[in-house]
Amino acid sequence: MKQNVLIIGAGGVAQVVAHKCAQNNDVLGDIHIASRTLSKCEAILESVREKGAMKQEGVLEAHQVDAMDSAAVAALINKTGAQIVINVGSAFVNMTVMDACIETGAAYIDTAIHEDPTKICETPPWYANYEWKKRDLCAEKGVTAILGAGFDPGVVNAFARFAIDEYMDEVKSIDIVDINAGSHGKYFATNFDPEINFREFTGVVYYWEDQQWKEKKMFETGHDWELPVVGTSRAYQSGHDEVHSLATNYPQADVRFWMGFGDHYINVFTVLQNLGLLSEQPVKTAEGQEVVPLKVVKAVLPDPSSLAPNYTGKTCIGDLVKGTKDGQDVEVFVYNVADHKDAYNEVGSQGISYTAGVPPVAAAMLVATGEWDAKTMKNVEELDPKPFFTILDNIGLPTRVQVGGLGGEDKAWNE
Amino acid sequence: MKQNVLIIGAGGVAQVVAHKCAQNNDVLGDIHIASRTLSKCEAILESVREKGAMKQEGVLEAHQVDAMDSAAVAALINKTGAQIVINVGSAFVNMTVMDACIETGAAYIDTAIHEDPTKICETPPWYANYEWKKRDLCAEKGVTAILGAGFDPGVVNAFARFAIDEYMDEVKSIDIVDINAGSHGKYFATNFDPEINFREFTGVVYYWEDQQWKEKKMFETGHDWELPVVGTSRAYQSGHDEVHSLATNYPQADVRFWMGFGDHYINVFTVLQNLGLLSEQPVKTAEGQEVVPLKVVKAVLPDPSSLAPNYTGKTCIGDLVKGTKDGQDVEVFVYNVADHKDAYNEVGSQGISYTAGVPPVAAAMLVATGEWDAKTMKNVEELDPKPFFTILDNIGLPTRVQVGGLGGEDKAWNE
Repeated sequence: MKQNVLIIGAGGVAQVVAHKCAQNNDVLGDIHIASRTLSKCEAILESVREKGAMKQEGVLEAHQVDAMDSAAVAALINKTGAQIVINVGSAFVNMTVMDACIETGAAYIDTAIHEDPTKICETPPWYANYEWKKRDLCAEKGVTAILGAGFDPGVVNAFARFAIDEYMDEVKSIDIVDINAGSHGKYFATNFDPEINFREFTGVVYYWEDQQWKEKKMFETGHDWELPVVGTSRAYQSGHDEVHSLATNYPQADVRFWMGFGDHYINVFTVLQNLGLLSEQPVKTAEGQEVVPLKVVKAVLPDPSSLAPNYTGKTCIGDLVKGTKDGQDVEVFVYNVADHKDAYNEVGSQGISYTAGVPPVAAAMLVATGEWDAKTMKNVEELDPKPFFTILDNIGLPTRVQVGGLGGEDKAWNE
Repeated sequence: MKQNVLIIGAGGVAQVVAHKCAQNNDVLGDIHIASRTLSKCEAILESVREKGAMKQEGVLEAHQVDAMDSAAVAALINKTGAQIVINVGSAFVNMTVMDACIETGAAYIDTAIHEDPTKICETPPWYANYEWKKRDLCAEKGVTAILGAGFDPGVVNAFARFAIDEYMDEVKSIDIVDINAGSHGKYFATNFDPEINFREFTGVVYYWEDQQWKEKKMFETGHDWELPVVGTSRAYQSGHDEVHSLATNYPQADVRFWMGFGDHYINVFTVLQNLGLLSEQPVKTAEGQEVVPLKVVKAVLPDPSSLAPNYTGKTCIGDLVKGTKDGQDVEVFVYNVADHKDAYNEVGSQGISYTAGVPPVAAAMLVATGEWDAKTMKNVEELDPKPFFTILDNIGLPTRVQVGGLGGEDKAWNE
């Protein structure tokens, strides 16, 4: 049993995490939130109080910390007595926060792969460049570290594991499809940190096919998917975190990720990309100022959390998994549908933040109860998916299945 | 008679000016070029020497100067003995360079209206905000200042004056049309300083109609023009320098400016504009760095002078002037066609720089010979256009006329 949570980060996802931790503080204990900017943490706590989200009376505190400073994070873990750290800060801080957890023995949970600010779309498997290098140390010290426990990566890894375990003897392919069929009403905006968002799509698209890593260009391959609730949706093969771990854990399966994009998004992206404005490498202005173009694009775009009040429509994220059972071909689509407006009404965030922020809280609850307290480093598909789905069903992200593939018999995962 | 030229600036237009001054140093005397970056001036002189452009032996020297520092410019005028200053530096330095000319008595020639870096598309008539405030002082001190003596503004102002003087009793409208039908082969590039280029199109489009200033939005009004040589060309009503002086000098005429844009340019422009990336106002990055987005866009775009070697095709810039003669409606189109490749072969620059850089040299020659040495401040339409056209015919930009309007009898202006 582990207790007391320290949330790192104060963006849209952190807001969801804070609300969901508050709603489940009977399981999780004290709730602390820390980021570089104290006022952003305080605004989140104010929102938690406004919604009366705390299930029972308890600690709810904001702190200032530089998450790039491992010693400072360790000191805060010790000061707060947090045994579980949910890192939903920038993807640049994973390793310093993880080091602080290893140092203090706290459990570590994150939702995205570590990134080096000067690199994009690193060589596969990307986890091997950073997190997995600490796996032996976590095991040796008995530190629980759950990597990529958001929706994608995270829940979709559990979807894959579930489909394979329940429906197949052998898996042949895993296609993860992420569609946001919502509308924010702005000319253009990204649904989470524009810097991280664009960095996903400016480099090589790595995927796993025929038991080897292959490469494509972004927007090279599109496909229309016939999905439940949101209907026919065009998605493009993209690089994504979970491909790097699923391909390692299921090397016999082809593993691909598909992200939905409208023509307008692609046009804006293509213009910015072709002009060099999405580059993570600094340029020098005529006046001699060194600037990273992508950081300027981020500065002019709407703050993703500002989209929430006017966001309408739904998301559909799922895994189409194909394999064989008793020598017969089988297909199953495991998925969730979430609603932007519902998310805003409940926690003051839009649906993309909601789907990313609810799962790490479910993971934290499983660490708290011991079910996922692995005492070593795990990607989500290495953990039992069923207790995860059970909690997610209860806290806002129910899992459904279409048996026979897309358009097949539609039911709850545990029906 | 004035002698010896100091060129301020070292961009693509300055390169053309230097070459053309060198080709006419029998009239102009010593040639000096100065900018913030000495190496850029030296590269231009190297290009002049390579082409063997000097008509006769003479002085050809590079200098470093901060053109925002009026005293430094005045000192350089005195040191070089320049009696004519051709200012083709950034539009932000007009007033400091002009002050240096007033201080020293040198004649001043520029090619674009003064701009304040923090403002765009200022209230009409724009000249009245800056240059015209110094008109009385110029007259009092007998200083010649010729404003906007590039192609547009500049030659097109002379086209209007010529059409009115030669063909009309009364003018009713002046439509200036600027078409670049050339191709640079890049994904996207501007033909001169991107910062100045975009600033022209991000604010209000001012024009003069029914004897009053009116406003439109950029790309609100497009028109297909049937032009000589380049054929049917779509152009959009835009704000431009010469509208501000022509409307003042010919208040009875409607005065509009039309700039040609392809769909691809408009798409890129629209994306950048809507995202806020063309803003001249600083934004703050997440890291706290203050940056002007437009300066970053400038930094990632190709240097306009780098386009020259691969530029092909032609430009067509002209004035469609309508009025009455002996009670009858009359129309005349006065125009020039220039070729990008010819420009590059002659002076190492593309056609847009060529059309902008040749006219101020013609103006300087007319100041040198006394014909345009007005001893006061003048916009180009206030000066006799015929000697200007005569020189332009000889140095690379011949003037032609279509009598009866577009598609009418086509001939040289002096046939």
